[in-house]
Parts: sequence; structure tokens; C-alpha cells
Amino acid sequence: MNYDQIFDQAIERLHSEGRYRVFIDILRNKGAFPNARCFAGHNGPKPITVWCSNDYLTMGQHPKVVAAMEEALHDVGAGSGGTRNIGGNTHYHIQLEQELADLHGKEAALLFTSGYVSNDATLSTLAKLLPGCVIFSDALNHASMIAGIRNSGCEKKVWRHNDVEHLEELLAAADPAAPKLIAFESVYSMDGDVAPIHAICDLADKYNAITYIDEVHAVGMYGKRGGGISERDEAADRIHIIEGTLGKAFGVMGGYIAADKRIVDCIRSYAPGFIFTTSLSPVLAAGVLASVRHLKSSNEEREGQQRAAAMLKSLFREAGLPVMDSVTHIVPLMVGDPVKAKKISDILLAEYGAYVQPINFPTVPRGTERLRFTPGPGHTDAMMRELTDALAEIWDRLEMRQAA
Amino acid sequence: MNYDQIFDQAIERLHSEGRYRVFIDILRNKGAFPNARCFAGHNGPKPITVWCSNDYLTMGQHPKVVAAMEEALHDVGAGSGGTRNIGGNTHYHIQLEQELADLHGKEAALLFTSGYVSNDATLSTLAKLLPGCVIFSDALNHASMIAGIRNSGCEKKVWRHNDVEHLEELLAAADPAAPKLIAFESVYSMDGDVAPIHAICDLADKYNAITYIDEVHAVGMYGKRGGGISERDEAADRIHIIEGTLGKAFGVMGGYIAADKRIVDCIRSYAPGFIFTTSLSPVLAAGVLASVRHLKSSNEEREGQQRAAAMLKSLFREAGLPVMDSVTHIVPLMVGDPVKAKKISDILLAEYGAYVQPINFPTVPRGTERLRFTPGPGHTDAMMRELTDALAEIWDRLEMRQAA
Repeated sequence: MNYDQIFDQAIERLHSEGRYRVFIDILRNKGAFPNARCFAGHNGPKPITVWCSNDYLTMGQHPKVVAAMEEALHDVGAGSGGTRNIGGNTHYHIQLEQELADLHGKEAALLFTSGYVSNDATLSTLAKLLPGCVIFSDALNHASMIAGIRNSGCEKKVWRHNDVEHLEELLAAADPAAPKLIAFESVYSMDGDVAPIHAICDLADKYNAITYIDEVHAVGMYGKRGGGISERDEAADRIHIIEGTLGKAFGVMGGYIAADKRIVDCIRSYAPGFIFTTSLSPVLAAGVLASVRHLKSSNEEREGQQRAAAMLKSLFREAGLPVMDSVTHIVPLMVGDPVKAKKISDILLAEYGAYVQPINFPTVPRGTERLRFTPGPGHTDAMMRELTDALAEIWDRLEMRQAA
Repeated sequence: MNYDQIFDQAIERLHSEGRYRVFIDILRNKGAFPNARCFAGHNGPKPITVWCSNDYLTMGQHPKVVAAMEEALHDVGAGSGGTRNIGGNTHYHIQLEQELADLHGKEAALLFTSGYVSNDATLSTLAKLLPGCVIFSDALNHASMIAGIRNSGCEKKVWRHNDVEHLEELLAAADPAAPKLIAFESVYSMDGDVAPIHAICDLADKYNAITYIDEVHAVGMYGKRGGGISERDEAADRIHIIEGTLGKAFGVMGGYIAADKRIVDCIRSYAPGFIFTTSLSPVLAAGVLASVRHLKSSNEEREGQQRAAAMLKSLFREAGLPVMDSVTHIVPLMVGDPVKAKKISDILLAEYGAYVQPINFPTVPRGTERLRFTPGPGHTDAMMRELTDALAEIWDRLEMRQAA
């Protein structure tokens, strides 16, 4: 058994498929997002524009968020020092959970160290509490939901993406007496399409299933108070468990669920991924608290982002670039090849100072490799025009026009 | 199918066993740890002393850590805005990984959002890269290691806690051609005992197994530079993968592994729990960087903690309290009953302003419920004498002397 050889081969597979990942070394400039510095070269940091951040509303530099974090840092220090049960439960955590419960009109909320952990811990634990549970999972659900479902050990039925007829077929074929859980996302982050929430909830009512929605790419950004697509579509009260992140539109880090008290109490009490881990730093909790509160009353950031996304889509279309259909803030350009996607990204960064990461397998299916742009309220019209011109030039240079 | 009833019953089981968890609502006072404020009552915050923090060296309030976090917050903002691959890789992450690799004398290191995720993601991914792998797991391994091993889908062999003869029996009985991984901890956090690292590594050599050590309760605290028990025992170069946390002795939040480049590159490239999650906030990474660097050269905090732990054990013994054997900084008092453990904890908090959480199942086996004290460099002799007197009084009041 030669372990080194096995590990070397695993890495070689990635190189041979052109999907070995090189992390771009950056520092964003607080107060001037989307401007940042890139450390890729050897001539010191170089100014760049970031086009692929999930800090969708630039709340990571909002003065209220920064001030709240600074205040908490000086009041209570850097970390929480323990799990939620053993010394690591602070007043910030409790206040933030109340704020998030209110955001979604639920009785309670529960914080996790990340959105990934929220999904993994909640789905795996829920299903264990419901013996014989069958989980119905949208085909494009995020890796963290897939992990939670697999780790639950439950039977899993995958329905074709956003296809409620197929979902009903599967529900109708299942044992009527078995507990059922329907798990899906509101905004699918790599395509930018949206789930038919009400139609799914109608089926949940008909077949007595629990509903679980991942709103990580929607909280803060949709709905009058940032409650996500479920708020915008007035469907929050039809969803049993709403899962969200604190690391994208809210600009900080962490994840959560919001649900009724008994469900939250069960997850809090039974999920190893919640119980056996140091709680979120109170500095982060304080920052998120300020961010959630701000976005409950301010629409300026949401409007700025929607305007930028609409404009960038329109500019890409006018330039004949293969912009994918998207009804949200996500602006994906299809490339369809991992090597080309990386090449375009490399040229953009080296020659134009524009940073957009190529999205390859396993984040998207093979053959659908793409560039994914997330313009925000800080991207100016001039930046968007420059980017479009750069992409048009690269598309010509690489003779990709026929692909579009 | 009445879901509410099932969830209610799950909560009722906890109440009936006396292990329903109530989180104590506190805020620690930066600059004055272990002093804190407790929000449990209705008369506003009340001053308390925290005895169960895993911020073992009080680095969460160290001026260098706080200053580094403040600087990063103002330089780059609150969150990273993305995964390590997509926009969330900052210069702080890279520097911190280099610092942690150096701490353990390894080629590389990799950050995770928590120690829990480090174990879960690394163990489950490693084993998948090694088809047919058999994992040998110490019986008292942490929940996160158990999760990682279960999620790997590998065959698992559990060896009796710290029993190398049993480990050898199991290794000898396994297929000689199968890949093997031995997973264990250095300091077991609920008992305070230490693994025989060299004896385990001798067996790993003999049977050609990979070694994986969890040093979360040791990094920062043991070894001349805080490299853990593996540094203290000069065994780091015999361990393939060292896993640690940034949320205990380093005082902030997050987790990591350190290993050779090819292993780190494999985990970085294949672990869903690493790939599909927003990276650590750069503010946290900056704070940890300052903490790790400080503890590489300063022994003051380590010595203060060891002195406090030795004194508290000695005071407990003199007072006839049932202090458990521990060769480390952990000071556990055996109670053996979940209801009594909670009652003692409640009296300590309400009448003496001393906060120590009862440790119940599933954190420890049923029948071994305990109070677990973690005195640090900030706990004074007077505080320790007061605590001992309080405990002696409560032990008498609850007529528990015979149990000791």
C-alpha cells in the first residue's frame, strides 16, 4: 500500500481534467468594494475588481456592521470560548436568533457555524427523529443538503429540478403512512432560477410532508424585509423550516434555521453538528445582528443590486455573449469547457484586473462550466461596460463566437 | 402522521431523563476574563466567574489578538464573501495556513470553519480516496471524528480507549493489503488523560497505517511553541495528519489540519465540507494569526494555566471532593447523575456566581455525568479557594459525601 502514490494520482486526475483549483489570493478594500488587491504576482498587490463575491449587497463593509463588530470585540473579546451549551452562549446569539425568527415570521431560530453545517446537521437530524422518513430532494440541491440527506440514512427520492409533476409522481408512489420531507432551494445559485414554492407547498399539504427550503442565495435580498423568496411570494408560513446563511447578503459568516419552537428545540437538542462545536464568535453575531436589522428596513441595497444585475445581463446580451436565463441577481455566462473557462478567467484577471472565478465540476455538472458574475450595488455602469468590452474581446480572441 | 407529536415526544424524553439543556446567557468581560455577566434572571446582568470556558489561555482577550482583528475589520471588512475557491481566499487565510504548518513542522495546512468540520470533512474524504480503507478509532473519540468516520462509509474498528494492545489485535486481524487509518485524540477533554502517541505510531509503522490525531484540547497549550502533545512528546513527524482548533486555546474560532502537501491538496480538492462553504471571516483569521504567533514564543499563558489547574486539583482533593484523575489542564469532578449535576451547577450559579456547566449524555456516557472545570491563567488563588469552599458546602447540603 503506497499512500503517496494514491494521493498523487487523485491530484493528477484533477490536472488532467483541467479542473485543478488555484485559489486567487486577495484582500478586499473595505469602504471601496468591489475594489480589492490581488497577491497573485510577485510585484506586490495589484488593484482588481471583484465580480464573483457572494457578499451580494456589500454589507461586509457597511458602517453599522463594522461598528457593531468593533464594539463587541472590545466588550466581550474575540471568540465565544465554548459550545452553546458549555460557556459559549452569549446575549448576542440569543438576540440574533430572535431577530432571525422575526425575519421569517417563525417562533424560533437556531444558529450554526455555517450554512453548510445548518443543512447537514438539520436534515440529518430531522430525518433520524422521524423513523422511516422518505426525503424528496430537488435534483440541483446544494452539496450541503445532499450531505445532510445522505448522512440521515433515509430513503431519498430525487425529483427533476423544479418539476412539480415529477415530485407529485414520487410522493404518490411513496407509502402514505411514512413521514415525508421535501427539501429544495429558493434561488439556485449557479443558474439563477427560482423554485415554484406554492406549488411545492400544495403537494406537501396534499401528501402531509414537512417542507424544508434553503434560502441562502435569497435572504437579505428578496422580500420587503429581506426574508427571501418565501417572503416575496408570501409563502413563509407554508414552509416548516427556512434555512439561511449569514455569510452572503448579510456579509459576515454563519448559518441558521428558522422554524417553530418544537422543531428548533429538537435540532438544538439532538444535532451533533450543533451540539459539539464552538459557537459563532460573538463578534460575528453582533455584526450579523446589525446587518439583519438594517436590511429589514432598507431597500436601497436590494434595489441597487437588482438594477446592476439587470444592466449587466442586458449589456452581455447586446454584446452577443452567451448569458444564461436567470430571473435573479445571478448572471452566468455559459462556456461549457473547464479549460476554456479557466483561460478566460486568467486573461480577465491578468490583462483587465477583473476577477471572476471559473465554475467547474463538481460545483456544476461537467459540460456546463461557466463564469458566474454577481454584480452588486457597488458596481458602477462604467465598470460593467468595461467588463463587457473585455469579455467580447476575449470571446473573439479565443474564437468562441460559434459557441454562443 | 402527526409530526408535532413526534417532536414533542423527542423533547419529553430529554426532560424525563433530566438532560434537557438550558443554555446560560452570558457576556464575558474583555480584559477581565474569567469575569462575565449573566442574563439568566430578570434583574439585568449579574456578575459571575466562568469556570468552564475552553478559551483555556484567555487569548480571546489578548491585546494582540484584539488589535489584529480590529485592523483586519477596518482593512477588508466583516466577512470573506465567498468560498476559498470563489472570491473568499484572502491573504490572511494563506498566511495563517503557513503559520499553522510551521507550528506542527508540516509542509502545509488547511483551514475549516470549525474543528468539528475539520474532523468530519477530512476523515470522510480521506477514507473515500483510499478504497477499502479500514479505520481504527479510539473508543472515546469526539463526536466529530465519529461523524467523519461514519460518513466515510468505511469499515470501522473501535479499540478500547488508549489500549494499544487491543489496537494491535485489531490491526493484526485486518487484511494486510487494505489501507488503514488510525484516528485518535491527544488530550481527551472530558477525562483529561493523554494518548500514548509513540506506541500508537509504532503500530502504525508496523502495520503500514496512516495516523490522524485530534489535538484540539492541546494546541497552544503543550509543547514549547504550542504545537500540542505531539510537539511535547516529539512525535509530530510520526503523525500524518494533525487536526486542531482555533476556538479553544487560540481564543477565536475555526479549525484546521496540518499534513504533507499532497494530503492537504487532496482534502482541499475533494472535501465537500471544505469546498462548498464560505471561508472563515478574514477578521477571525487575522486574530488567530496573532494568537498563534504569540503563543509560539510566550510560555507565560501555558505556565499560568498549568499552575492554576494543579492548584485547583489539589484544593479539591484536600476538600474531599471526587476530582477525577487527569494529567492535563482539565479538572473534572465526578457526580454520576444528570439531575444532581444540574442541581449543583444551578446552586453554584444562583448562590455563588460561579458558572460551570453540567456535562451530561451524550457528551459523556450515562452514569458518568460530571462538572468539568477549566481554570486558566486568569483564575486567582482566592477565586479557586472560594469555589472549593462553595462546592464543599453544596456537597454536604446534597448529602453527597458517600459518593465521593
